[in-house]
Amino acid sequence: MVRRQSELFLPTLRDDPADAEAVSHRLLARAGLIRQVGAGLWSFLPAGWRVHEKIVQIVREEMDAIGGQEMLMPVLTPAELWQRTNRYRIPELFKLCDRGERPFVLAMTHEETVTFHFAELRSYRDMPKILYHFQTKERDEPRPRGGLLRVREFVMKDSYSFDRDEDGLDVSFRKHADAYERIFERCGIEYYGVQAESGMMGGSESIDYLAPSGSGENTLVTCERGDYAADLEIARGVPRAPRFPQRLDAPREVETPGIATIDELAAFMGVDAAATAKAMPVVTADGTLVLGLVRGDDRLEEAKLAAVLRSDVRPASEEEIREAFGAEPGSLGPVGFAGEIVADEALREGQFVAGANRTGRHLAGVEHGRDYTARFADIRQSSEGDACPCCGGRLRFQTAIEIGHIFKLGSRYSEPLGATFLDESGAERPVLMGSYGIGPGRVMAAVVEQCHDADGIVWPVSIAPYGAHVLALHGGSPEVLERALAVAEALSAGGVEVLLDDREQRPGEKFADADLLGVPVRVTVGKKTLDDDAVDVRVRATGADERIAREFVLPWMKEL
Amino acid sequence: MVRRQSELFLPTLRDDPADAEAVSHRLLARAGLIRQVGAGLWSFLPAGWRVHEKIVQIVREEMDAIGGQEMLMPVLTPAELWQRTNRYRIPELFKLCDRGERPFVLAMTHEETVTFHFAELRSYRDMPKILYHFQTKERDEPRPRGGLLRVREFVMKDSYSFDRDEDGLDVSFRKHADAYERIFERCGIEYYGVQAESGMMGGSESIDYLAPSGSGENTLVTCERGDYAADLEIARGVPRAPRFPQRLDAPREVETPGIATIDELAAFMGVDAAATAKAMPVVTADGTLVLGLVRGDDRLEEAKLAAVLRSDVRPASEEEIREAFGAEPGSLGPVGFAGEIVADEALREGQFVAGANRTGRHLAGVEHGRDYTARFADIRQSSEGDACPCCGGRLRFQTAIEIGHIFKLGSRYSEPLGATFLDESGAERPVLMGSYGIGPGRVMAAVVEQCHDADGIVWPVSIAPYGAHVLALHGGSPEVLERALAVAEALSAGGVEVLLDDREQRPGEKFADADLLGVPVRVTVGKKTLDDDAVDVRVRATGADERIAREFVLPWMKEL
Repeated sequence: MVRRQSELFLPTLRDDPADAEAVSHRLLARAGLIRQVGAGLWSFLPAGWRVHEKIVQIVREEMDAIGGQEMLMPVLTPAELWQRTNRYRIPELFKLCDRGERPFVLAMTHEETVTFHFAELRSYRDMPKILYHFQTKERDEPRPRGGLLRVREFVMKDSYSFDRDEDGLDVSFRKHADAYERIFERCGIEYYGVQAESGMMGGSESIDYLAPSGSGENTLVTCERGDYAADLEIARGVPRAPRFPQRLDAPREVETPGIATIDELAAFMGVDAAATAKAMPVVTADGTLVLGLVRGDDRLEEAKLAAVLRSDVRPASEEEIREAFGAEPGSLGPVGFAGEIVADEALREGQFVAGANRTGRHLAGVEHGRDYTARFADIRQSSEGDACPCCGGRLRFQTAIEIGHIFKLGSRYSEPLGATFLDESGAERPVLMGSYGIGPGRVMAAVVEQCHDADGIVWPVSIAPYGAHVLALHGGSPEVLERALAVAEALSAGGVEVLLDDREQRPGEKFADADLLGVPVRVTVGKKTLDDDAVDVRVRATGADERIAREFVLPWMKEL
Repeated sequence: MVRRQSELFLPTLRDDPADAEAVSHRLLARAGLIRQVGAGLWSFLPAGWRVHEKIVQIVREEMDAIGGQEMLMPVLTPAELWQRTNRYRIPELFKLCDRGERPFVLAMTHEETVTFHFAELRSYRDMPKILYHFQTKERDEPRPRGGLLRVREFVMKDSYSFDRDEDGLDVSFRKHADAYERIFERCGIEYYGVQAESGMMGGSESIDYLAPSGSGENTLVTCERGDYAADLEIARGVPRAPRFPQRLDAPREVETPGIATIDELAAFMGVDAAATAKAMPVVTADGTLVLGLVRGDDRLEEAKLAAVLRSDVRPASEEEIREAFGAEPGSLGPVGFAGEIVADEALREGQFVAGANRTGRHLAGVEHGRDYTARFADIRQSSEGDACPCCGGRLRFQTAIEIGHIFKLGSRYSEPLGATFLDESGAERPVLMGSYGIGPGRVMAAVVEQCHDADGIVWPVSIAPYGAHVLALHGGSPEVLERALAVAEALSAGGVEVLLDDREQRPGEKFADADLLGVPVRVTVGKKTLDDDAVDVRVRATGADERIAREFVLPWMKEL
């Protein structure tokens, strides 16, 4: 097909949107591909929707290739289903009532509904199965931002696998991992598949797909030598060893009046900040106060501590701290604390300065085993000076966008929703599930984050809104416009989707708009080349220009 | 492709769902094509989704053929947009707040959003344009029913046209009418395009597409001679002429104590019920009481009266009636009433018995012009004895399903939302819009209502979930299963989408399931035909059976 640009609803913007920080937000809005309707609520305008739907089609093909069956489940969902799985309390879940005051949610994902449907089946013969849909998701994000990067409504492909046992689940999970790799490769995106926390989804294993980008809400940690990649939330960087002071036979209490920070404490005590311990009291979902302990130069990674405790955690309030420790927040430590202590692995060996649980006092020479006992786990947040846990190489931090996430759910949903089956022996067992999500809009934004230059977007061929952009520099010459149309139609007849710039604009404006939109190939038809029946072609990605005979445009493109 | 039925998520039901009245509800649920998640909330299971998406693709092709540009607008919409057009008060509109207590609606249609986007454009050169999307709609229906017939969530194709003037709007409207006719024809549906009321959409002209069916919420009125079709709400049936009693020179008051119905009144007065008048006081949106007057044997059609008054109307309360008339509801009439009277055309000529506006009394011989004045309009509901307004033929009433609706909106939305443009003379004018909706799920249900028999669904080829259903009656014979697979793959290689029943079920069960699902062609491979390399083919629509050589199956299907 040939789409005439004079007819296309492609309202470009001269300037960046006022609030646009992310480059994908700026370029997608300026090129006329997306428009905001409200905070975190976006319309895809026709050319943008073409990109979205090309990504959707790639996802669909790869899901079908692993045996996925497409269906559709509703957005509006009776609250009862979400109450049964204990997810009704999720703050991002939009809740509403109908006119009969019956409660509903707007599904932010569809584990509940698909499990409800699958529970109709009863036999081991009904598995394995993979069901999926593309459906609108709603999330009450407190801070939508970055154009398509963090939104309140988006289309997601979510698929669900159903298996009889762990081996089956492994197979379904692996099939999805392979499919996701093919999807991202076909979309021309640089990405890392990293082990990640399962968060609100529950379940035992998950892979997060992160696309490095200038904007993004995730921090991707990679080894400079290429043998390690993880989301910061679970990255296991190895911290430098502390320089310990001389060993003490017993803790020594020191008055530390007015000391408010670890740096001040280290300077005051004359020790390496890495030889101090920082007490971080948290409260679990059931109200238990737990003392998290990390090295003074480290940060507590709440996600890791939450995984250890199998509960969401929040920082304890000052009042809760005073009640539990009898001391102010700045003077807390493990010695003498009667509750549970989870200490970071880095504190296992050596003596550290720690709070004395008496306001304005610290203890020097605190040693695990002798002075306190704790459960040890990796609960520190990796930091940029860390070494790779695999090879000792330097770890690199980059911001990244989450473009997909796959989870092993096990029986997290099948048990509360009664999705069980009878095995060969007639015994009833819960179905084992996996859940796999990918957001085409996020992928689209991530591609723009990675594929652009100062002039605009540089679409990969696989997801470009059009295959070729034919520019008619006709300025008052019907012959040129006619020739440009002939070129466009010849390309179209050869299977290329063509956008024909037939507008009255001046050449400079047409070139700028074409660069902004980022169609892979630009074909310019002007007065200069009319006589020798040639056109100027340019590859957007490389900027390479060439003048070729009109009849060679299609073969030239095919070769590309 | 070949889909093995043993792997397909197609959970059939032995019995009808308990609450299923509509045949489409029964058959779609039993065949495993749809499942209920809540009242008016349905999932499309994989085979059902295939049908839905085939309808979607037909709609898309016809929209593209008239120059439509596909895009996507969000469901969640800031309430402010709907407040500006005064539609926030619609009771079917789902309303909710985000966590910051900002009000939103779930869009039930997208006039507001698309107009908001289009308002970015400013030039007459930007028109005409047609934008459309397929998007989830949410409606807080008080009484969801009939499976897919009346639901609370559904996918709708809604398109919007933007034009400079009435002539342009006419063209866009006509293009859509033509596209809709092609869509319904391609889907194999019997339908009528009828003039209809615009209702909550506003605007000046609309065509409602009605599919006759055993279930449905609309009443389709057609002439037995085929020259007239209308929705009951606006049908202009011609009532029989009354038998008038002798003419009176002036109204004569008669005591009619205890007379409660028109039949009683007619009998008491010794006149034809058609020679009486019935007073129906209503109240408009601004609180004005208006007297609607229809013949005694007719019903007031509120939708017609509302259109005449350009306002929603509701029946007046007994208290409002007493205050306005000084009489009880059973004795009202036009004579002496000081407010506005809208009388049905059937009352223009002749003398009628009417209430005297004195409790327990009526007037005989009431005549328009002499005894009262009124605005005349067609405000009666057509009834089955009426004659066709075109040819005098008999009118036929059928229940029907609304499968599409197209509207001329004019400046109903462009004015409040500021979508204006500068014409050639530089004058600012509002864009003229049209709005055009079609629900693929409704179309799917309507097709089933029209195309089924006692055994199940009979899909038209164009929207069938598969092109051929190959049944392997293998019962312990690997050769039969192998041969059936070969037949399936040969058909698939020829471009046919094939469902292969490779399950262990007995032949009777397979035949019954195949009839229920309704794939157009059934190909049976059994032991009997193995040796002579033949198969049994059957056309679902006609039941015609044939035994043909395996190699001829594909040519036979192509010929079909």
